[in-house]
Amino acid sequence: MTPSPRVESAIADRRSIVNDAIREQLPIQKPERLYSASRYLLDAGGKRLRPTIVLLIAEAVSDVEPLSTDFRTFPTPNGEAIDVLSAAVSIEVIQSFTLIHDDIMDDDDLRRGVPAVHREYDTETAILAGDTLYSKAFEYMLDTGAPADRSVRALNELATTCTEICEGQALDVSFEDRTDVSTEEYLEMIEFKTAVLYAAAAAIPATLLGCDQETVDSLHGYGLDIGRAFQIQDDLLDLTVSSDELGKQRGSDLIEGKRTAITLHARNQGIDVEELVPDSPSDAEIEAAVERLEAAGSIDFAREMAHDLVESGKERLEVLPQGEPRAMLEEIADYLVERGY
Amino acid sequence: MTPSPRVESAIADRRSIVNDAIREQLPIQKPERLYSASRYLLDAGGKRLRPTIVLLIAEAVSDVEPLSTDFRTFPTPNGEAIDVLSAAVSIEVIQSFTLIHDDIMDDDDLRRGVPAVHREYDTETAILAGDTLYSKAFEYMLDTGAPADRSVRALNELATTCTEICEGQALDVSFEDRTDVSTEEYLEMIEFKTAVLYAAAAAIPATLLGCDQETVDSLHGYGLDIGRAFQIQDDLLDLTVSSDELGKQRGSDLIEGKRTAITLHARNQGIDVEELVPDSPSDAEIEAAVERLEAAGSIDFAREMAHDLVESGKERLEVLPQGEPRAMLEEIADYLVERGY
Repeated sequence: MTPSPRVESAIADRRSIVNDAIREQLPIQKPERLYSASRYLLDAGGKRLRPTIVLLIAEAVSDVEPLSTDFRTFPTPNGEAIDVLSAAVSIEVIQSFTLIHDDIMDDDDLRRGVPAVHREYDTETAILAGDTLYSKAFEYMLDTGAPADRSVRALNELATTCTEICEGQALDVSFEDRTDVSTEEYLEMIEFKTAVLYAAAAAIPATLLGCDQETVDSLHGYGLDIGRAFQIQDDLLDLTVSSDELGKQRGSDLIEGKRTAITLHARNQGIDVEELVPDSPSDAEIEAAVERLEAAGSIDFAREMAHDLVESGKERLEVLPQGEPRAMLEEIADYLVERGY
Repeated sequence: MTPSPRVESAIADRRSIVNDAIREQLPIQKPERLYSASRYLLDAGGKRLRPTIVLLIAEAVSDVEPLSTDFRTFPTPNGEAIDVLSAAVSIEVIQSFTLIHDDIMDDDDLRRGVPAVHREYDTETAILAGDTLYSKAFEYMLDTGAPADRSVRALNELATTCTEICEGQALDVSFEDRTDVSTEEYLEMIEFKTAVLYAAAAAIPATLLGCDQETVDSLHGYGLDIGRAFQIQDDLLDLTVSSDELGKQRGSDLIEGKRTAITLHARNQGIDVEELVPDSPSDAEIEAAVERLEAAGSIDFAREMAHDLVESGKERLEVLPQGEPRAMLEEIADYLVERGY
């Protein structure tokens, strides 16, 4: 399966709006080295899936013609004008901060095909750039012009999301030393590490625009489902796509001993996943390991799990009015597990 | 001069309340390694000056008998009950996060007489512990029960404060490579790096309790003044107190080439501050360098600058009702430049 041209173009259109907004809201100002390091990874690319979801949810809950409305002054039923674009930038900036700090923690050299921030600059600057993006994200979320009670709810969601991302990252690291991680524990870990930011991206625009709690909760669930599917697809791509296409070493999860839906299934099939690849495996040794996982049904198991999550997520969109924005949110869910990188 | 027993005991009383609140609001929960690393530096000590200011400002603007009122349900003139203790914890937790990340950036081994978090745990865990405290601080500030419009203003102050702390840290590092830093640039750097968190500690309780903008602004100015005085005193202590008492190497600023009020003055007196101490100086070589700075009048210059800032800060307290809480805030200002460590 390949993603439909329609969803690719829906993402591309919103990506360009988000990129302009990032340049506008996060200019490279004094101290210049700090802000250029803060912008470096954002400028290096990225699909902008999470901010695209923010903008699509705003369009969907308002049932407006896609891209017909200025995201800086997005209208609510009460006639307020909300800057949902600032919320979208906030979510993307949080994502960027977590990647910068994760790359330091994992000592990864490459990200989006360019040197990681701590390689291009230095570790001190990379820590500080991440910290700067962290508070900037809160500033942007406070800058939507929404009524104070809704801003407080959005900020609360953002803060607890960030705490959970840290907890998820800590769980992921702690799992590397354990051979008895259950599927439930794995699902909780990827919920925290990855899915909660998708949930925030889906729920926060609804909160800011004044939707009822049932709608907000259902969209939150959509984000959790598709965010987990996204992470499982990431785990699959790590095994099935070449190092060139990935922009990093193929099979790095196997090498680092990360727990994934694939290796958890394989262990239950009696495979010693610790011994699947040697320390510095060749391409052929990675390929052989993947073939064993394939034969054990572990790849299909993960694919099915991701597929089921996407279907569950799409069902949660039933709280939205029928229309093109909702259809695109459904296609985005499919896109997350159909994308090749 | 030594601090009065009255102010020492006012700080000690509030420190104990803040310490209980930290244990209550930041329990060591799952993932345990993450939360024990997050608590490690907070548990190692600290005077809790900033949260003490939060609590004293609440008492001062309300003109209540000191320690007669529960800080969890602090009354406003409108009869609301505000959890100013949660705001106090938020400010202390921000301080702790910045220390943890600063120690990684400076590769310092010791803090408060114990190993730095990245030494006691590891760099990955220390980065993540700092990031966790960061979002927790926002959660705590959202948890005061204040009306939403005031919460939004408090959150805004907290977010911009964090951004400025990062900018100040970046400026501090960039000054190490420059020999032409002006006193104005230095004062801006310490305002961002250190003073803005004192300003937030003083202004935010007034905001949460519904004070008028003039009061909030004046208290903000009090915090900026005494926060700068605190940093200048820190620079003085680095030169004048033994390594044992400091809990770190005496003269480390001279060794690392940090710009301080003392070395900026010395440079203007024609002293080559880059050559004041060799790379790994003995105690005697540090002592000789300090004597040269003393003779050049640089130590007295910095003392006077700190003293003037304290006097200016105290004048800004005139927006507060006369009474014991205000008197203690004045004494805290004096305390910041009279403390020996």
